[in-house]
Amino acid sequence: MNQDTICALATANGMGAIGIIRVSGNEAFEIVNKIFDGKDLTRVKSHTVHYGYIIDKKSEVRHEASEASSDIIDEVMVSVFRAPKTFTTEDSVEISFHGSPYIGKAILEVLIKNGARMAKAGEFTMRAFMNGRIDLSQAESIADLIASENEASRKVALNQLKGGISKEISLLRHDLLNFTSLIELELDFAEEDVEFADRAALKNLIDHLKTKLGSLLESFRYGNAVKNGTAVAIIGKPNAGKSTLLNTLLKEERAIVSNIAGTTRDTIEEVLHIKGHPFRLIDTAGLRDTADEIEAIGVRKAREKVAGADVLVYLADAGTEDFAQDIDMIRSLWHDGVALIICLTKIDEVIPTKLDAVEQVFRGALDYPFDFIKISAIENRNIQELKNELSSFVEELQSEEGNVVITNQRHFEALQKSLDSVVRVEEAVQSQITTELLAYELRNALEQLGEISGEFTNDEVLGNIFSKFCIGK
Amino acid sequence: MNQDTICALATANGMGAIGIIRVSGNEAFEIVNKIFDGKDLTRVKSHTVHYGYIIDKKSEVRHEASEASSDIIDEVMVSVFRAPKTFTTEDSVEISFHGSPYIGKAILEVLIKNGARMAKAGEFTMRAFMNGRIDLSQAESIADLIASENEASRKVALNQLKGGISKEISLLRHDLLNFTSLIELELDFAEEDVEFADRAALKNLIDHLKTKLGSLLESFRYGNAVKNGTAVAIIGKPNAGKSTLLNTLLKEERAIVSNIAGTTRDTIEEVLHIKGHPFRLIDTAGLRDTADEIEAIGVRKAREKVAGADVLVYLADAGTEDFAQDIDMIRSLWHDGVALIICLTKIDEVIPTKLDAVEQVFRGALDYPFDFIKISAIENRNIQELKNELSSFVEELQSEEGNVVITNQRHFEALQKSLDSVVRVEEAVQSQITTELLAYELRNALEQLGEISGEFTNDEVLGNIFSKFCIGK
Repeated sequence: MNQDTICALATANGMGAIGIIRVSGNEAFEIVNKIFDGKDLTRVKSHTVHYGYIIDKKSEVRHEASEASSDIIDEVMVSVFRAPKTFTTEDSVEISFHGSPYIGKAILEVLIKNGARMAKAGEFTMRAFMNGRIDLSQAESIADLIASENEASRKVALNQLKGGISKEISLLRHDLLNFTSLIELELDFAEEDVEFADRAALKNLIDHLKTKLGSLLESFRYGNAVKNGTAVAIIGKPNAGKSTLLNTLLKEERAIVSNIAGTTRDTIEEVLHIKGHPFRLIDTAGLRDTADEIEAIGVRKAREKVAGADVLVYLADAGTEDFAQDIDMIRSLWHDGVALIICLTKIDEVIPTKLDAVEQVFRGALDYPFDFIKISAIENRNIQELKNELSSFVEELQSEEGNVVITNQRHFEALQKSLDSVVRVEEAVQSQITTELLAYELRNALEQLGEISGEFTNDEVLGNIFSKFCIGK
Repeated sequence: MNQDTICALATANGMGAIGIIRVSGNEAFEIVNKIFDGKDLTRVKSHTVHYGYIIDKKSEVRHEASEASSDIIDEVMVSVFRAPKTFTTEDSVEISFHGSPYIGKAILEVLIKNGARMAKAGEFTMRAFMNGRIDLSQAESIADLIASENEASRKVALNQLKGGISKEISLLRHDLLNFTSLIELELDFAEEDVEFADRAALKNLIDHLKTKLGSLLESFRYGNAVKNGTAVAIIGKPNAGKSTLLNTLLKEERAIVSNIAGTTRDTIEEVLHIKGHPFRLIDTAGLRDTADEIEAIGVRKAREKVAGADVLVYLADAGTEDFAQDIDMIRSLWHDGVALIICLTKIDEVIPTKLDAVEQVFRGALDYPFDFIKISAIENRNIQELKNELSSFVEELQSEEGNVVITNQRHFEALQKSLDSVVRVEEAVQSQITTELLAYELRNALEQLGEISGEFTNDEVLGNIFSKFCIGK
């Protein structure tokens, strides 16, 4: 707990009404006191806010003409948080200043002059972890929360911050640890050939662990859809109505985005949110202007787009007389693992009786499952149905039981390794292997789980995790 | 004071560790209470900070799988400020959340759903003004403070926020008001031909007002240099060493800028700071690559650059044999009101005895005042002297007495009009004009001064002033 005092800008870069500088460490109060013209911060209660001025007492250059404000940097509000009930568990101060980047910089400089040092990326959160207030998965969730751009990612990150994963992992570790202890006890009494650990109970434990780890691993598919979005390739012959559909889908999205004061989106891909879940419309810019997609050379390009996609939305113009080309195209593009939605477009231009006939043509020709939706982007018909269909793709990934979702590649890998060890334990039990090996694999599984909470995580991994945080967090 | 409750994001746009949403108005506590899972905010002390969750109680969509966090929007810290000791003088709340723009938007939405409305640009500050906590010049200084990008503009804005201008204006108005009252009293007793107001004292007052208003108006030159920067045109024949000098001048600046975590500069002009004052190097990009500046067509271009400049820095290559062209160029460019600095460049390439001879050539040919500096950008010789020279140009603008600086065009115009009225009062006194006219002009001068503090400012002007604020201030 004996740590130096760090400071950093905690709010977003740029001009705002308010900027916040965060200070944390043993000397947080003493240092801020030196530059604060207001109440004595060492004597005020925790969780209180105080008005005053940040001053540079040691300012050497004084212009007579502006003496009155020469060493005053800004009028501020200072919030005081006493250890241990703070974000870092250390004494902490937040300085709320007039949000000019220049003023923020001037305050940081005077803090540093008086004994604080600039915080490294993620250092505040790292301290919260190091000081035992949160575990590593919770620390990671803070970065996820800050980066969250939709309902689903916010929820999953918040649940993780509230200890969702930590609890799950800790339950698994608890069972595993009890058993490992008994096995290791056997090792101590190896010569006496006793069994403290019931091998039948071990079998049950293994089954339980396999189920639990399996379902956590399975949740990563949903976690990934939440964090990185579901990739949707929208393909069709030229004039199949791609632009119109895309505009219709994205119009509402754009309206929402532009209505929110203070939100800027600078993603290159077009992202569509449906019921709080992100869908990445792959390379739509390219899709919009390529006119040769259906031709020989075009098929290869279309395939590349579909290769990385979770969902293929194929558009066929209802006004077409012969759908053989479309069907060929779908056959050559579709592969196992990609969901297929066929949209018959421009249905407003065609008599209704034809539409069902066309559906039969596709149903007859293609022998794998797909959804068939008849849409008119111009008349906004069945667009909602298409959205529901996309949405249900993600909803089906959500696990039925529990709300713990793995979104982190690191967690996924640790869980996978832990499961591998559990499987090896199972094999070891079946093949009547030595207690030593059993103990080794059990210990392995435990340590892998410990990686997630940060108990067995080395400094390099920690450094790597926190370096990806923003400064001031 | 009976105002609806407004809310807005107060921190800069974009992702940060912390974002702040500000809520102000009669129902601030009630509204935030409805969405805050934590202490009852109507019962906590002012200026205290409370941990809890922002929740959307009326959330209709609940996914079973994520029930635990379904209606929780974020884990937050909430600061409570009770009227009247708040920024707006109204009950206010600041919500500190995990700085994702998405989360900020979600919190704003739930605030609005529960009875708050989105604040207009500058509305918080406008309320502080309307509720009488600050006057108009102080309100304006807040926007200046947030936009401040250097030491000088920060100081001037802060002094204005602390009431520097307000005090000065109020003193002038006090004297003027006393006198106007006496003059108006005379009007009431017009038939009795008495003089309550001593005309000799009026003469003294007029002299005093003229001096004071004159010096405030004069300070606008400095105020302008602080707020908009001193415009410096750097001109010279091709290969006179412009690029090298510019790079040398700006190198340090760039180093400073890039050292400050969290500062981004996106000005198009190159800005150089010397002793906390900004200097705008005019069109340096253009200057760097035009090769025809000295030719007939080039002179016109150079003249345009010098036209808007406060300082002309003319570069002459010390290695030149004949300086006639340079001298012609300077003659045709220089005009009254622009300060001239002639820099003899590349002095490292020339023997020292030649340098003094060259200076004599210039001194002999040009019969107006200029500074002559012999520099070598490559050897960094006398670059500091050039900076000092530029700096002294601004320092000379600083008034000797008092630290009140006018930076605002609106204030400048009001002061000018007030001075005009005072001059007309003076003429009226000299020409023994009627008391009515005297009273009218005195009242005029008073009202113009009242424009600055906002006492006589109409809604349109107010709307215009606050609309230039950022949202959340």
